[in-house]
Amino acid sequence: WQGTLYSMVVFGATMVVMFWASVFLYTSFYFTYMPQESITWPIHFQYNACEDRPGICTNPEAIISVTDPARGTLLARGQKYRVVVDLEMPESTTNQRLGNEPQPFSSGMFLVSMDMRSHGGESLRQASRSTMLRYKSSLLQTISTMAFAPFFLYGVQEEKQMVTVELFSQYEEDPVTPLSEVYVRLATKHVELYGAQLRIHAVFSGLRYLMYHYPLTAAALGIGICMVFLSAVVIFSWYQFSGSAGKQLGG
Amino acid sequence: WQGTLYSMVVFGATMVVMFWASVFLYTSFYFTYMPQESITWPIHFQYNACEDRPGICTNPEAIISVTDPARGTLLARGQKYRVVVDLEMPESTTNQRLGNEPQPFSSGMFLVSMDMRSHGGESLRQASRSTMLRYKSSLLQTISTMAFAPFFLYGVQEEKQMVTVELFSQYEEDPVTPLSEVYVRLATKHVELYGAQLRIHAVFSGLRYLMYHYPLTAAALGIGICMVFLSAVVIFSWYQFSGSAGKQLGG
Amino acid sequence: WQGTLYSMVVFGATMVVMFWASVFLYTSFYFTYMPQESITWPIHFQYNACEDRPGICTNPEAIISVTDPARGTLLARGQKYRVVVDLEMPESTTNQRLGNEPQPFSSGMFLVSMDMRSHGGESLRQASRSTMLRYKSSLLQTISTMAFAPFFLYGVQEEKQMVTVELFSQYEEDPVTPLSEVYVRLATKHVELYGAQLRIHAVFSGLRYLMYHYPLTAAALGIGICMVFLSAVVIFSWYQFSGSAGKQLGG
Repeated sequence: WQGTLYSMVVFGATMVVMFWASVFLYTSFYFTYMPQESITWPIHFQYNACEDRPGICTNPEAIISVTDPARGTLLARGQKYRVVVDLEMPESTTNQRLGNEPQPFSSGMFLVSMDMRSHGGESLRQASRSTMLRYKSSLLQTISTMAFAPFFLYGVQEEKQMVTVELFSQYEEDPVTPLSEVYVRLATKHVELYGAQLRIHAVFSGLRYLMYHYPLTAAALGIGICMVFLSAVVIFSWYQFSGSAGKQLGG
Repeated sequence: WQGTLYSMVVFGATMVVMFWASVFLYTSFYFTYMPQESITWPIHFQYNACEDRPGICTNPEAIISVTDPARGTLLARGQKYRVVVDLEMPESTTNQRLGNEPQPFSSGMFLVSMDMRSHGGESLRQASRSTMLRYKSSLLQTISTMAFAPFFLYGVQEEKQMVTVELFSQYEEDPVTPLSEVYVRLATKHVELYGAQLRIHAVFSGLRYLMYHYPLTAAALGIGICMVFLSAVVIFSWYQFSGSAGKQLGG
Repeated sequence: WQGTLYSMVVFGATMVVMFWASVFLYTSFYFTYMPQESITWPIHFQYNACEDRPGICTNPEAIISVTDPARGTLLARGQKYRVVVDLEMPESTTNQRLGNEPQPFSSGMFLVSMDMRSHGGESLRQASRSTMLRYKSSLLQTISTMAFAPFFLYGVQEEKQMVTVELFSQYEEDPVTPLSEVYVRLATKHVELYGAQLRIHAVFSGLRYLMYHYPLTAAALGIGICMVFLSAVVIFSWYQFSGSAGKQLGG
């Protein structure tokens, strides 16, 4: 009877220890294996103002340093990334090309160019994507301003649009020449921006996809697998121990 | 009595095995014989912005690589394809040519040109098609904006049109010089686009037409034909087997 | 009995003295350790008026001396600061770029440049950030003016905006070359300002964050820790004193 009680206490304690050991193992694996899902940097565009008239006379451009002083590169190896630029643009007359007589039909499209550069300044990959403010007819704008006037007056909403441009959908880092800085350029001088940011998102696939999108299921599975392996070790030790213990009790 | 039962069990098992073998045969045939119905690529137009005024000063053009790194060409031999370009155009003043005094009557038509090129850059086939935004009178636009205002305000709908241009209706690949890249060009500088895509659709005829448009009928027919052929083989074997079995039983 | 009363009086007096000593110690520590959270200087821009036409013909610039005659530098060592410029801009036609015919589409963005300089005039760090007046459509402006007219008439509110530009988010002083003056420049000649100010905010972290954002908790903790240390000293003295006092009473 005492032997049974003793065995049960040992069994219970072993289960608890094994469970927490599995949780610890899975958690360590998770944080080692999973890269950061999303990283964001502000883009501070630089340009020259015109000498003799209002407006800007060079294309806005910016260089963003995307390395971490402590860790070096921020991108994981063998992981695909989606690189996106967000432009916060007011729905202003300049952005909407609402000017009248001299050029009634000027296209509001402009190109956003990106150049991914290594530490030495070497260009790794380039992309150039066309974008423009979403069009609203003047009637729709009037209706919209009327309908949302209280929000506009109290600053809850603003007459602006968030324009998102996808530059790369499947950017994968080459481990030999890691990404160090990103050069962004807007190929227009007739644009107004409140701000801009660069976003890099990890596109998870396979095991990472499962671990990111179904964290509870993946955790349960991972902890279960750890426990099975630990159990195998423990049961082997247990049989050896209880066998020798039985011999000693019966001897 | 035992012989009859034995025969029935064997007959039933043979039927089940034959049925699944037919399904497997038909499915393999289907995926081998039927090419991918539709392939889509985004078109990223490139152009130069004007130096001294807003708008764009070269015609938008793009090169789309239509090969697959693993499989090479994506088009099946002897299959006819329909090649289409979709332009997502806002119903903006620029696209609608609503400017007033200097050019009151300018046509909104423009040409979309396509050049199918082989790996060496050689031009295989060319086409150029005219298109334009569907016209809406200002009264109709007012009514439309009023009627759908709630949808516009909440971003469910947008003031845009999807303009589809068919460049080739019967494009068939020459196996000697397979298609490698597609060059697309818009012959206008006064256009605004949110985005564009290239679509290639397989135009099925004959057996493929039947298999694509009536998949259930074709599957039933195909599986039936397979079973008839398999039955012929099995009945032949059965007679031989039951004959020798009967001889053994009666012997 | 007299001995007990005497002990209680001494104990009470010691507690009060210890409490106030702790309060004094914590307060001294607080004001020694915590840098000033926010320092503000007015920016007085200088520029040249045009000779032959209205307007200004040089970019507005200003030098702000940020040292204290008594204490020298105002920034604490090892403390990170956020450096911000506030521009008080009227919503005027000049600031909103509402000009018509010659350049209907000029961008209202402009750069604010800052140069942190040491005593010898050496440039320590530079930054340049783009900013612009928040856009309001003419309809929204009309509604806003109508709605707030009474406030505008009595001068409670004004048709102006406070534009805040963050130049540095993590400025840390180098103790060898302390900051002496700040040079600010607006890279545009087509701007109107009522006034401007330079703000430097300490970004607290760790102990300072706790002491700044939870002053009562931090004070209670700090005074408590002081009292524990003082108690240790006092109890040690007390035991020695009461032991020798008991010996004297009993002797």
